[in-house]
Amino acid sequence: MLKIANRISALGTETAFAVSEEAAAFAALGNKVYPFHLGDLNFRTPTKIVEATRRAIEEGKTGYCPTRGITPLREVLAADVNTPRGTHYKVDNVAVQPGGKPTIGKFVLALMNPGDEVLYPNPGYPIYESQISFNGGIPIPYSFIEDRDRFRLDIEGLRRQITKRTRMLVINSPQNPTAAEYNKDELEQLAEIAMANDLVVLSDEAYFDIRYEGKSQSIASLPGMEERTVILYTFSKKFAMSGWRLGATIGPAEVINVVAKLNVNDESCSNHFIQYGAVAGLSSEQPEVKQQLNVLKERRDVAHDILTSIPGIRCLLPQTTFYLYPNVTGLMRDKGYADYESFRKDILEHTGVSFCTRMHFGRPSEGERERYVRFAYSGIDVAAIREGLGKMKQYLMK
Amino acid sequence: MLKIANRISALGTETAFAVSEEAAAFAALGNKVYPFHLGDLNFRTPTKIVEATRRAIEEGKTGYCPTRGITPLREVLAADVNTPRGTHYKVDNVAVQPGGKPTIGKFVLALMNPGDEVLYPNPGYPIYESQISFNGGIPIPYSFIEDRDRFRLDIEGLRRQITKRTRMLVINSPQNPTAAEYNKDELEQLAEIAMANDLVVLSDEAYFDIRYEGKSQSIASLPGMEERTVILYTFSKKFAMSGWRLGATIGPAEVINVVAKLNVNDESCSNHFIQYGAVAGLSSEQPEVKQQLNVLKERRDVAHDILTSIPGIRCLLPQTTFYLYPNVTGLMRDKGYADYESFRKDILEHTGVSFCTRMHFGRPSEGERERYVRFAYSGIDVAAIREGLGKMKQYLMK
Repeated sequence: MLKIANRISALGTETAFAVSEEAAAFAALGNKVYPFHLGDLNFRTPTKIVEATRRAIEEGKTGYCPTRGITPLREVLAADVNTPRGTHYKVDNVAVQPGGKPTIGKFVLALMNPGDEVLYPNPGYPIYESQISFNGGIPIPYSFIEDRDRFRLDIEGLRRQITKRTRMLVINSPQNPTAAEYNKDELEQLAEIAMANDLVVLSDEAYFDIRYEGKSQSIASLPGMEERTVILYTFSKKFAMSGWRLGATIGPAEVINVVAKLNVNDESCSNHFIQYGAVAGLSSEQPEVKQQLNVLKERRDVAHDILTSIPGIRCLLPQTTFYLYPNVTGLMRDKGYADYESFRKDILEHTGVSFCTRMHFGRPSEGERERYVRFAYSGIDVAAIREGLGKMKQYLMK
Repeated sequence: MLKIANRISALGTETAFAVSEEAAAFAALGNKVYPFHLGDLNFRTPTKIVEATRRAIEEGKTGYCPTRGITPLREVLAADVNTPRGTHYKVDNVAVQPGGKPTIGKFVLALMNPGDEVLYPNPGYPIYESQISFNGGIPIPYSFIEDRDRFRLDIEGLRRQITKRTRMLVINSPQNPTAAEYNKDELEQLAEIAMANDLVVLSDEAYFDIRYEGKSQSIASLPGMEERTVILYTFSKKFAMSGWRLGATIGPAEVINVVAKLNVNDESCSNHFIQYGAVAGLSSEQPEVKQQLNVLKERRDVAHDILTSIPGIRCLLPQTTFYLYPNVTGLMRDKGYADYESFRKDILEHTGVSFCTRMHFGRPSEGERERYVRFAYSGIDVAAIREGLGKMKQYLMK
């Protein structure tokens, strides 16, 4: 056996993948599975993007391209970010990446020194904590509080965590898994905190364009923040392109220069011809997008109706992302589930309904008593939502 | 200005990209440029690969796939590596990557501890040294000696560099930039050294299938070496797919498990539908490949003929890669070029011929007196080779 490097012990993972594997194994036994565990879309990528990609292959865009991406894509990306945010990004502020995720590690490598403390959301996407720890930083979680109509950022808790060593703040709004949005007041307080403490901000805006009502907000829009914010941009969710692997890092030019140097070392460049597809995607309306949002909204409503009709479950109705984050404290207590895993596995085995729990998005904070699970409705049709959650309801109300 | 992390000062780059930029700027002024600087192929990707990729998009392979890659690709990859090498890799020994390059950084992260010494080729691909230094290791260069008929590994020099802290050995055979191949005797000596000193080996086999005569050899074929070797595999060169970004890490299962965990953290997965294209590429003969090798061979011969007809240049005739690595010591001395950069720039400005020098592949060793430049003939047609090198010859013989 080869000796693995010591640093690997600090590397985390996405435990949600284990849920996928478990669901697949259960399905392989001949069981019907209702997949609510994965944040992947079962939609087709818009036709214009597919066609432009095909044309680019035909035209021989199959060799290397610049490590920051092709200039036409960087131009339309800057515009696509600027228009709703009122920011002033130009070509030099954009480095194309093979997906949204690469921005997390590269942000940390470019700006964090070992021993730096980094504030990150918990529950939240597990890769923030993993990349912070792996690269020698100290991950400091902040959390959310369930109000009557929304998850509110625990900003007082966050303030209390700030020390002289705090160097970075990770924001994910709209948020996975809670579908929380930091409102204007919260963003303004965060901006004030960032400036007062000289923090750099990673703003993961993967779900910025997935919304049914209202308008998404970015901390980069606030005065003084464009200079200290790095935006994680991805094509995965907005155009149903998760398997294409295309995204971008957008931020101050001096950070983008470093990120580009990391690109040279890590992967040379992102796929060349797909970048022409992405240019087509951002250069005109994609009729499929509106239609897909309508479908997602219907799924959200159906899932929400059934979940909230189950005694012991309450659930907010978010206007964004494709996640529901129901509070199952009462249900778990009433039905005698001792822990998340026994609850999750029992539902899977008896109904085929597969979902993630709060445990797949970090570790519970001290004193955390409310219990939550996450239902992703991005990869399951309305009929299957009705059937699966119907079975789950019937099983739980027995 | 944001404060960049300290670690970035240890990050290297590919200075060859600066040559590309300089050539592009020179062309933009209306000058004709003869591009010998880039190891990229101006060939079309084989039709069956393009067609299978299109079909996969049609069939909706546009969502996430497993972080190690799709099983059918991992199966044919293991077979493609095993057949010429006599190795015994299975699906569990393969992790698909977005290109060949990601294997370098992931190998280092998975197996090297800070302070470990790593032997690497110099001249060589500059990313080995960069990733070793960036991640806290100590890069220890070994070199090659020009014999009458080949570049021979300086194995005695390599042996002298081994200390108690030597932990890894990087091999690149066939080699960029020299086109050197480690012969059977050298590989056997390296295997013996690796086993005697408990070294793990990164075998960068990016050019394994680019050859005109003979048969490539892998250190993984030697007894006891499969267990301690990680192979860098890439589709970039063999199928003219550099811009597609697809490759793989192939090695012991315990290393592949760690590499897969790094994949989860760094990019989730590689592009999904392209993997079906790659399966098609490896599942049958691609008639274009033989044809492209014939074209490359003709380019090699034409370039070699002209270069060796220039007084003060001598050049080996390699049977592999698409590089020539002429010795220009006499020429530079006779024409009074003080250093590599003045030579390179003078030729570019007066003839449009653009190439890299030894300086783009590491730093000269102490006492290194012979001077070399690298001509890549992968991205330039025979007519342009004749025209460009003809101009260069005329200019130099004035």
